[in-house]
Amino acid sequence: MPVLTNIGYLATCRDQGSQEEIHAISKATLVWKGESILWVGKESDLPTEFSEMEQWDAEGKLVIPGLIDCHTHLAFGGWREGEFKQRIRGESYLKIAESGGGILSTVTKTREATREELMARSSRTLDEMAALGVTTVECKSGYGLNIADEIKQLEIYESLNCEHALDLVSTLLAAHTVPPEYKTDKEGYLRLLCDELIPLVGERKLAEFCDVFVEKSAFNPEEARRVFEAGEKAGLRAKLHADQLSDSGGASLAAEVGAVSADHLECISDCGIEKMRKAGVVAVTLPLASLFTFQKPLDARRLVSAGVPVAVATDFNPGSAPSFHLPLVMTLACVQNRMTPKEVLKGATIYAARAIEREGVTGSLEKGKLADFAIIDSPDPDHWLYHFRANACLLTMKRGKIIHERK
Amino acid sequence: MPVLTNIGYLATCRDQGSQEEIHAISKATLVWKGESILWVGKESDLPTEFSEMEQWDAEGKLVIPGLIDCHTHLAFGGWREGEFKQRIRGESYLKIAESGGGILSTVTKTREATREELMARSSRTLDEMAALGVTTVECKSGYGLNIADEIKQLEIYESLNCEHALDLVSTLLAAHTVPPEYKTDKEGYLRLLCDELIPLVGERKLAEFCDVFVEKSAFNPEEARRVFEAGEKAGLRAKLHADQLSDSGGASLAAEVGAVSADHLECISDCGIEKMRKAGVVAVTLPLASLFTFQKPLDARRLVSAGVPVAVATDFNPGSAPSFHLPLVMTLACVQNRMTPKEVLKGATIYAARAIEREGVTGSLEKGKLADFAIIDSPDPDHWLYHFRANACLLTMKRGKIIHERK
Repeated sequence: MPVLTNIGYLATCRDQGSQEEIHAISKATLVWKGESILWVGKESDLPTEFSEMEQWDAEGKLVIPGLIDCHTHLAFGGWREGEFKQRIRGESYLKIAESGGGILSTVTKTREATREELMARSSRTLDEMAALGVTTVECKSGYGLNIADEIKQLEIYESLNCEHALDLVSTLLAAHTVPPEYKTDKEGYLRLLCDELIPLVGERKLAEFCDVFVEKSAFNPEEARRVFEAGEKAGLRAKLHADQLSDSGGASLAAEVGAVSADHLECISDCGIEKMRKAGVVAVTLPLASLFTFQKPLDARRLVSAGVPVAVATDFNPGSAPSFHLPLVMTLACVQNRMTPKEVLKGATIYAARAIEREGVTGSLEKGKLADFAIIDSPDPDHWLYHFRANACLLTMKRGKIIHERK
Repeated sequence: MPVLTNIGYLATCRDQGSQEEIHAISKATLVWKGESILWVGKESDLPTEFSEMEQWDAEGKLVIPGLIDCHTHLAFGGWREGEFKQRIRGESYLKIAESGGGILSTVTKTREATREELMARSSRTLDEMAALGVTTVECKSGYGLNIADEIKQLEIYESLNCEHALDLVSTLLAAHTVPPEYKTDKEGYLRLLCDELIPLVGERKLAEFCDVFVEKSAFNPEEARRVFEAGEKAGLRAKLHADQLSDSGGASLAAEVGAVSADHLECISDCGIEKMRKAGVVAVTLPLASLFTFQKPLDARRLVSAGVPVAVATDFNPGSAPSFHLPLVMTLACVQNRMTPKEVLKGATIYAARAIEREGVTGSLEKGKLADFAIIDSPDPDHWLYHFRANACLLTMKRGKIIHERK
C-alpha cells in the first residue's frame, strides 16, 4: 500500500463547481492500494494507519489525474505529409480530397495494412502517450468504411485494451465519410451501417459509442439521426463531429439525440451552445485540428461562460491533427481557445472522462477511483501549461502501476 | 575520424537556390575529423580513404545541420505564468504592463537574481535545447536595463559560451524598454546607452550585435538610429525587433542601417519587404510569440516569394514566448507562417546562421564547416515537422562531440 508524500500541488479535478475549480490541495498525500485510491488529502491530515506504509516522495512537484485523450483516430495506415505541404501552399482540403488525397487515401492504406502492422504501430503510439501522462484513450474506427475493415479497427482496439497498460474506449465512426464503393449510393451505405454494421458491433460489444461526421461534405443531420437511432438500438451512445467547417446544426442535433459529446464546434452558434447546456452534452475542443487546417479556433469562453463543460483532446489523425501530444494540445487550448490552464486541466481529466462515460472510475483523484495519475515537473498547472517543454511528465501511474518513469 | 553511414536522408541546407532547396542527399555518408566536416556525399561515392574508418550507423534516419535558435532571451529571473491567465481572459499587455506586470517585472527579478542562479538556470535550458537538436543559440540581454545588470547578463553568456558545449552568440538589447529609473527621462537613458554602455560592451567584446525594440511603446526609428550609430562605432552590428504590433517602419529602418536581421514582422508592409530584400536583411519569424499574444501571424509566403530569406526562432522569453522548443516552433512556422517544412528547415539552419553571422562556420553540412548535426527519428523533413512528437531527436553532435543521445 504505497503512500505518495511531499506533493507540492495536487489537482483533484473533482466534478464539482465551475470549469476552473480544480479543487487543489497543497502539501498533499495520496494513498492507493492495488488499482484504487484509498485516501487523498493534506499531508498533515494523513490518518496514522497509512503513515507507516511504503513512502514515495513527489519532491514537491505537481500531481494530476492521469490525462484522458477523449478523441483520437488511433489506428490508421500510412501518413499524409505530402498533402500537408499542399495545404500550406493554399490548396483546399476539398481539392486535395478530390484528387485522391485526404481521408480516402488513409482508408486505402488502413484497409491494406495488416492487423499486426496496425497493432504494433498503435501500441508504440500508446507508449509515447503514456510517457506524456496519458492513462485513458478514446479510439475511433472510420478508416475501414466497410464491415470487415471497421471491425478490424475495433478488434485492434479490443486487443490493445487487453494487452496494453492504457485503457482504451472504442467508438464506431463508420459514418466518417462515404467510401468509394458507395460514391453514388449513399443510401446504400447508410443501410449497410444501420442494418448490418451497427447491430453487429453492438452485439459483439466492440464499441460503446457511435459517431457521425455531420458536415456538408459528409452526412447531414437527417442522415446522422438514422445512424444514431440504429446506434441506440444496438446500445451505442451518440457522439458527433459537429460544426467544424460550418454551422451545420450539429450541436443542436447532439442535444436532440442526447449525445454524450459534440466535438470540434469551431462554427457553433449561440443557439447550439444553449441547447447543449440544457441537454448536458460535453463539448470537446480540438485546437490542433484548427491549427493544422488554418481555421479560426473555437472561442471556448463562450461555452465555458454558458456553463457547458469543455473537454480538450488531440484528435490524433494523419490528416488534420498529426500529433498525439496532449500536453501540447492543452497549451494550444489556452492560447487558441482562450481557456485558462486550470480550465484546460479539468478539460483533459474529469470532463474528458465524462465525454467517454468514465467519470465514475477515472478523471479525478478521489477515494475509490482508479490510481491513475501523473507527476509533472512543474509547481502548478498555470506554470506547466504556460512553459511548454518537450515532456514535463516525470512519472505515469496507471491502475496503481508505474507505466512510465523518467530516469 | 568517424564516418556516419546509412543516412536515409541528409539535408545539407547549403546556402544556394530558393528557400525550399535544401540540397538533400539520399543514402548519404558524413565524415568528420575533430571539430570539422571532411566529406559529405552519396554513400556510393565515399572515397576509399574514408571507407575503413570508424563506422557509425544512422539506421536510415534523417540527418540535419545542428539547429540554430537565432533569437532568444535566454537568461532571466522569475516567470510570468500569472499574467498568462490575465491575457487569456482578455486583459491587454499594455494594461498588464501598467499594473506592474510585463517586461518590467522580469527586469526586477533579473536584477535581483544572482549570477550563479542565472547561470545554473540557463545552463539547464541549454541542456534541454541540445537534446532537441539545437547546437547554436543567440542570447539577448535586455532584462538588466542598467550598466551593471546588462553587463551581468552578457557576462553570463560569455561564461556559458566557454563552459557549455553549445555555442552562444550575444546581443546587447539594452534598448528593450525604458527602465523605471528613466521613466520620465528617456533621453537620459538613450545617452547612458550611447555614451557609456554600448562603448563599454564593444570594448570588452561582450556582444556582437546591438538590438532595439522599435515599437510605439518602446523606441521610435529616430531613437533606434542613434543606438545603431553608437553600436556601429563600437563594432556591434544592428538587429531589430520590428513591426511586431504595428507597422512602425522597423523593416525600412533595418534596411537603411544595414541590419543583419529584422525580427517579428507580423505587421510588415510590402514596401518594408522590398527594402529588406534589396538590403539583404534576414527576416526572422517568431510564431510562438504571435500565438501567445493572440496575434495574427506573419504570412511568411509574402517574404519567401519576394526572395527575402526567412529564419525561424523561438523568441524564448518569460512573457510572450515561454518555450525553447525549436522543433515545435518550426511546426508552428508551417501552420502559422505558411512555410513548407523544407523552407522552415533552411530557416532554422543556414538562414538562422546568417541572422547571427555564423554562415561561414555552421548552419549547413559542408566540408570545412563544424560537425554540428542531429539525427532525427523521421524519414524526411516533411514527415518530421508534420508529425509533431515530444522529441524526435535521437542524437546531437556539436563540434564533433556527442552532446545528447537518446538511450
